[in-house]
Amino acid sequence: MKEFKPPFRILLGPGPSDVDPRVLKAMTQPLVSHLDPVFVGVMDDIQKGLQDIFKVKNPVTLPISGTGTAGMETAMVNMIEPGDDVLVCSAGVFADRMVQIARRARAQVQTIEAPSGEAVTPGQLMRAIEKKRPKVVAFVHVETSTGVAQPIEALAELLREDDIVTIVDAVASLAGQPLDVSANGLDFVYSGSQKCLSCPPGLAPVTLSPNAVQRLRSRKVPVQSWYLDLSMLEQYWGSERRYHHTAPISMNYALREALRIIEEEGLAARFARHRDNHRALVAGLEAIGLEMYAKREVRARTVNTVKVPDGIDDAGVRSKLLERYGIEILGGLTDLKGKIWRIGLMGYSSQRKNVLLLINGLEEILSEMGFSSTSGAGERAAVGSYERVS
Amino acid sequence: MKEFKPPFRILLGPGPSDVDPRVLKAMTQPLVSHLDPVFVGVMDDIQKGLQDIFKVKNPVTLPISGTGTAGMETAMVNMIEPGDDVLVCSAGVFADRMVQIARRARAQVQTIEAPSGEAVTPGQLMRAIEKKRPKVVAFVHVETSTGVAQPIEALAELLREDDIVTIVDAVASLAGQPLDVSANGLDFVYSGSQKCLSCPPGLAPVTLSPNAVQRLRSRKVPVQSWYLDLSMLEQYWGSERRYHHTAPISMNYALREALRIIEEEGLAARFARHRDNHRALVAGLEAIGLEMYAKREVRARTVNTVKVPDGIDDAGVRSKLLERYGIEILGGLTDLKGKIWRIGLMGYSSQRKNVLLLINGLEEILSEMGFSSTSGAGERAAVGSYERVS
Repeated sequence: MKEFKPPFRILLGPGPSDVDPRVLKAMTQPLVSHLDPVFVGVMDDIQKGLQDIFKVKNPVTLPISGTGTAGMETAMVNMIEPGDDVLVCSAGVFADRMVQIARRARAQVQTIEAPSGEAVTPGQLMRAIEKKRPKVVAFVHVETSTGVAQPIEALAELLREDDIVTIVDAVASLAGQPLDVSANGLDFVYSGSQKCLSCPPGLAPVTLSPNAVQRLRSRKVPVQSWYLDLSMLEQYWGSERRYHHTAPISMNYALREALRIIEEEGLAARFARHRDNHRALVAGLEAIGLEMYAKREVRARTVNTVKVPDGIDDAGVRSKLLERYGIEILGGLTDLKGKIWRIGLMGYSSQRKNVLLLINGLEEILSEMGFSSTSGAGERAAVGSYERVS
Repeated sequence: MKEFKPPFRILLGPGPSDVDPRVLKAMTQPLVSHLDPVFVGVMDDIQKGLQDIFKVKNPVTLPISGTGTAGMETAMVNMIEPGDDVLVCSAGVFADRMVQIARRARAQVQTIEAPSGEAVTPGQLMRAIEKKRPKVVAFVHVETSTGVAQPIEALAELLREDDIVTIVDAVASLAGQPLDVSANGLDFVYSGSQKCLSCPPGLAPVTLSPNAVQRLRSRKVPVQSWYLDLSMLEQYWGSERRYHHTAPISMNYALREALRIIEEEGLAARFARHRDNHRALVAGLEAIGLEMYAKREVRARTVNTVKVPDGIDDAGVRSKLLERYGIEILGGLTDLKGKIWRIGLMGYSSQRKNVLLLINGLEEILSEMGFSSTSGAGERAAVGSYERVS
């Protein structure tokens, strides 16, 4: 085996995002063990940082030792007991994954569906919970497969009562797009380290409201996963510091540094940066004649979806972007394959220079392929003028 | 939050081990995404490297995106269907964990027990499988809680038939102490990245024999964990490269470099190094008057257990070692708490200089506490002379 020397990429796909060099450097610190007082200090810092970005005081706030999907599974297996009625607001691949995982936790799963590119409506949710009141309602905040952000405040408003536990997937939103977990009364929110947190993939932050903790503590049967059992994990991450499994030390160093960077930038400034770069991207894409996929009023600010023009080779465009500029964007999943591009502007990847480079690269490649914009050139002006208008 | 600057440790506990600076450096390489052709190359290298150290040609050989316990859970949930009879050779905390996880996978679990500090015998195993033939037999190769290595060849010899799937925990042995998975006909072996592989914790290499793959493919009910479902994971790690979850990129960079270091050293040389440093440690500990805990004939070469002398403060000795020399060793778990020390010499931590420093530090601290060795001084001679004798 030779030494590994990866090419330099600009990661503008739906995740992972580019990682701040400071975060990469944090992983070179020598290891201490998972029960070392020094590591306990790291754990304290991480929990405080996560509480700040989730906007909670929940004591049970910690990173699961796995990727975002492990966070999703943690939510399902801890909150569901066999036979429980679970309602999933289904509007994309990741909500479908929730359905599959909930079924494997032996839930009775109902779904309400939104047309692709749109969000579930509060009316749909209200009718569904009136028809059959579920024990758990789950939805994805920013659906990475469609670029749609669910109307979290309006949905959460209907789910305030303690008999329903609300699970929210914030994998593609946490620290990139406003999300106030406590103010919205959300019970179990999970995320991933590799998107707006701009840390490598491998950790899944979760937070549990008092209601979710109560649900956990009143379980009749043990959580089916030992590895993801929060009744034990909370003893390792709580004041007992009781050994459960060997935490991924270096990944936690990385997460601590990523949270420190967020603290320095400030959440409000970070949200504004994500919003501005999202708007600049949309302006630029539209200026070169492309059409956004997700409806304007439900468009996420972190993962952007744009239609592949008729007659244009989806994969051909992406591989040229990669070859010429080292830029990665991704195509659609399942039935959206070949139909959309997914462009992430998250964390360290959310930079104005990345937007400009992508728009210009796309225009160049598309025009070589015979695509002619209806609105003509001027995308630099569009990207630039956006800021003055907003 | 301030910049994190950990103190320098010498990790001689039962894991994690010290990490080669080359492995830490590998994690500073910029990220590519989990579907990038460059990352696919990393995956190929890792699979080849893991096949070499497991000594298998099994196509389904890959790292699970979690720690060693996730590897254990992966084995149980993929190989067990509800109601299956499972036999666990129980001889310590990690075998007990197997029992708990198998029960959560709804197995009917039987155990055979060994006295603490001893191994399960082939006779016990033979009687148990004659009494009731199980579908799965599971045991821990090196039991980290007791420092005992099970007689893997003798046990495996009884488990050759395809109707029994043999699961082996090699968390504290893989690449440190000889283990030939194919020659012994073992079906499902898992390990962790943070012990003899000397990579940070966060990945759990697994390998499945054709028999284990057959068991997986003939399941009647889906694997209860979506995240750990090998029927999907093998499609991401197989030639399809079908997306399942976002792999922990930087951790896989680290694992690739750790495997590259093993390739350079050579497995035989690596095993000899672990053996020699283990023997030197035992000679040194006995020379300063301490007594080993695990019986000589079943003693592991990677995790060493030694009795805390009567009247000596277990935790006091450990904290002095940490303060004065930055050396971490750990105490016993559960009923062995306060009674033994657990000393790991694994991967990058298995160095002669670490053995000498530990023995001398221990002698110094113990003599301050009033412990007088029966055999007197001369431990340096003992450690040194070992090599000439062996």
